[in-house]
Amino acid sequence: MSVVSGVLETDQYQLVMAQLYWKEGLAERGAQFDYFFRRYPDYGTHQAGFCVTAGLGWLLGWMESVRFGREEIALLAGQRTVLGSPRFDRGFLDWLAENGDFGSIAVDAVPEGRVVHANAPIATVRGPLAMTQILETPFLNRLNYPTLIATKAARVDDAARGNVVLEFGLRRGPHTGAHAGGWGALIGGADYTSNVALSHAVGLDPKGTHAHSLVQAFMSLGWTELDAFRKFANVYPDECVLLVDTVDVLQSGVPNAITVFDELRANDRAPVGIRIDSGDLAYLTIQAARQLNDSGYEDVSIVLSSDLDELVIWQILSQLEAEAPRYGLDATALIGRITFGVGTRLITSHGDSALGGVYKLVAIDDLEGGSSPTIKLSETIEKVPVPGEKKLMRIYDNRGLATADVIAMANEDPLDGDRIELFHPHREVSRTIERSEISDSESLLARVFAGGRRLDGEPGLEEMRDRRRKDLERLDPGVRRLVNPHIYHVSLTRAMKDLQLKLMARLGH
Amino acid sequence: MSVVSGVLETDQYQLVMAQLYWKEGLAERGAQFDYFFRRYPDYGTHQAGFCVTAGLGWLLGWMESVRFGREEIALLAGQRTVLGSPRFDRGFLDWLAENGDFGSIAVDAVPEGRVVHANAPIATVRGPLAMTQILETPFLNRLNYPTLIATKAARVDDAARGNVVLEFGLRRGPHTGAHAGGWGALIGGADYTSNVALSHAVGLDPKGTHAHSLVQAFMSLGWTELDAFRKFANVYPDECVLLVDTVDVLQSGVPNAITVFDELRANDRAPVGIRIDSGDLAYLTIQAARQLNDSGYEDVSIVLSSDLDELVIWQILSQLEAEAPRYGLDATALIGRITFGVGTRLITSHGDSALGGVYKLVAIDDLEGGSSPTIKLSETIEKVPVPGEKKLMRIYDNRGLATADVIAMANEDPLDGDRIELFHPHREVSRTIERSEISDSESLLARVFAGGRRLDGEPGLEEMRDRRRKDLERLDPGVRRLVNPHIYHVSLTRAMKDLQLKLMARLGH
Repeated sequence: MSVVSGVLETDQYQLVMAQLYWKEGLAERGAQFDYFFRRYPDYGTHQAGFCVTAGLGWLLGWMESVRFGREEIALLAGQRTVLGSPRFDRGFLDWLAENGDFGSIAVDAVPEGRVVHANAPIATVRGPLAMTQILETPFLNRLNYPTLIATKAARVDDAARGNVVLEFGLRRGPHTGAHAGGWGALIGGADYTSNVALSHAVGLDPKGTHAHSLVQAFMSLGWTELDAFRKFANVYPDECVLLVDTVDVLQSGVPNAITVFDELRANDRAPVGIRIDSGDLAYLTIQAARQLNDSGYEDVSIVLSSDLDELVIWQILSQLEAEAPRYGLDATALIGRITFGVGTRLITSHGDSALGGVYKLVAIDDLEGGSSPTIKLSETIEKVPVPGEKKLMRIYDNRGLATADVIAMANEDPLDGDRIELFHPHREVSRTIERSEISDSESLLARVFAGGRRLDGEPGLEEMRDRRRKDLERLDPGVRRLVNPHIYHVSLTRAMKDLQLKLMARLGH
Repeated sequence: MSVVSGVLETDQYQLVMAQLYWKEGLAERGAQFDYFFRRYPDYGTHQAGFCVTAGLGWLLGWMESVRFGREEIALLAGQRTVLGSPRFDRGFLDWLAENGDFGSIAVDAVPEGRVVHANAPIATVRGPLAMTQILETPFLNRLNYPTLIATKAARVDDAARGNVVLEFGLRRGPHTGAHAGGWGALIGGADYTSNVALSHAVGLDPKGTHAHSLVQAFMSLGWTELDAFRKFANVYPDECVLLVDTVDVLQSGVPNAITVFDELRANDRAPVGIRIDSGDLAYLTIQAARQLNDSGYEDVSIVLSSDLDELVIWQILSQLEAEAPRYGLDATALIGRITFGVGTRLITSHGDSALGGVYKLVAIDDLEGGSSPTIKLSETIEKVPVPGEKKLMRIYDNRGLATADVIAMANEDPLDGDRIELFHPHREVSRTIERSEISDSESLLARVFAGGRRLDGEPGLEEMRDRRRKDLERLDPGVRRLVNPHIYHVSLTRAMKDLQLKLMARLGH
């Protein structure tokens, strides 16, 4: 009972609708769904101005491997209505047994690790209506959360100013979902994780030294903190990071660490660092650094942990920058030796723990084989998705910075004139960009799944991280800002806006 | 790469410490760790006064099934230090290959589904130091999140006043962790879930009807909302719940639903309900109910969804109670016909997305075979755990309500005198309860794992739900309150307090 996996990781209404489509002869009718989010994570006191995609490769691997097989069909055959009759017809189940995989579905997506924006399609899914509908739930389940965590990690990494960030969240993360969260963190900005299984799965060295319980265990058995440190250094002379806050950081932990570091140095070993996991981290960092420097350990790392997130890290580094000189410390050197261990607040995206990514029907084929764009009427105009088949272009200004993501018709080249008119996705507001102001452009969506196989080239972690770094370098600093970021432009071309307005008019808006 | 599972789902420092214990001859030394949380979830505008345990059975199943096998050992053997030498000794890996399972570990725990409180042990884990240490991370990973969601679900269920609650969170939930979250929700207060895989795994009927996309698909193909409803009713005449907010709830959705309900009734079928997923839910409920009642559908359900949580539900029902009579509706009947579909805010525990459950070393055996209680020195006295072997008693007052959870020495009976002196867990404050004020008491911890096998009797969902219902009935309404709940008493006996103070004194506090 503890394991639930496979194609049934979906919502019941997807199956209920799929059967209805089958009965109406629409199960294999071509349809397109777009995956996008409407607003960036808002953490309350701070807000994201971009997201970083994550989870796509694992999703595609799942799509390759699952289908409605004997077991799934048997379970569905056992479902009964309130009146006791089978809920699913034999004919529908036979259809599922024959067609119940994702082999006829094509997915175009923004590659994993890239920066993406609100209201722009991160993925488009085309295929038979019934199976594209059934895919909605696992598609959202497997992309929303990793993307949320990758986004948070990118912000943590930004705040950490290039220092090493370690993902420590497994203990407070959401059950087995913590692995996907850790994976998102590694793509988005964490350098390593303490999660052993995940590290081995993705080819990273898992990080971790010891907990308070180590010191406490030895002390309970009659030894001292110094003994515990010494025993640790004895076993791990080349990876000696000592947790100094079990007893008292400045009175006991750091002095004992220095004693052990001296012993290591006497044996030609290089001590690595100390870790502080409680208390006033900025104050303790300064005082610990002074003690370490006075003993000639200017280079050992100071690892900080304890409820860190991007705002806390920003605050700590700002304070160190201001205060270090007063204590005779070089602020740049002090900041540069810090490593951040980030746990709960990263793995849960503290402040906003869900990405509201949606998967919306935007086109359905007509009987002549053409594709009819479609929109949902909604009480809020902001919820109207961009209809139909489309392409997504990112254009860069003369500084080389991304200036807009442009949603265009599949068959148009939005850059073929001297000027581009760009429309707001939900309002009738436009602005014009001269072609000469544009230094570069690229199409963001690429075919990543077709014929039942992933086509994304199975990129490795470093490739995804490179994408993220390059995208962030080309993002306006105002959009990257941790608090109240600029709103990045996501725009429609005139042709796309016209289509949207036409459909809305047809539906009575 | 998409799947990471097994005994390596732990933090690296657990393995690093385990090797050190092995080198020191302490790997098999008996130790005890307690699992508890220090504060209830605080959602910002509202707070929990209790938690509901969940996840234990799945954890125990995992503990039964995993061990350090050939593959895990090979991965660890491949780890290298910064200098390129193996991080783990062959001797330690051989020890792990021999001893690397949970067969020597005994777990006592509060049964799954029960109400638990801050600072009281929810579980105690005894066994060889190395393996109990390695168990820390998966233990916390597999209990914290389900317990968090079960707690939220209990609050949602309270707010929903006994009406049916449906768990809808898979699309926004944390990747595969959403299954454990859904499971927690079902234990804590959700009646059903839309998650098909989870429903089949736990023997529930999965719930769900249709999405906006169904109406939208038919409209794109030239049909109307009414056509879509009619087609739905035709396939599902006995389970006809119609989503009425794709076009306009009161102008289109409800009138069309009534038309279809009339057709069902003409065929001797009983329509089941409507669902509203956007807009002002309280207002729309009243107006929809009026339309339904005017057509003779006083009994069909009104399913509400859209960013619901306990506070929103409370607000909606309070408003319905106040306003229903003004519209000529019976408030009790109106409220009684509502079903709540709760998604994102339940599966993410909106407002507080992590339970800070910890797993702390509280005792370690001495060489004479006795057990030495231990505590960690900490800068905040609130973080000092209760040391040593212990029992947890819940005592009930003369109203039959739980009045305190009492942490006692393993070998004492806290109820054997005429009066009980109860001490605050972190302050030197006590109160006295007369024996005559106590109507009942029970021991909360039971042996649930030993000899490598779960001993919890593999309780089913209904048994867990019964525990939760009974515990909530015996909880003071002030403690159950959604906002600013009373603080439930968790207390130490005099003997336990004396032990805590003695250990603190020994460590210099």
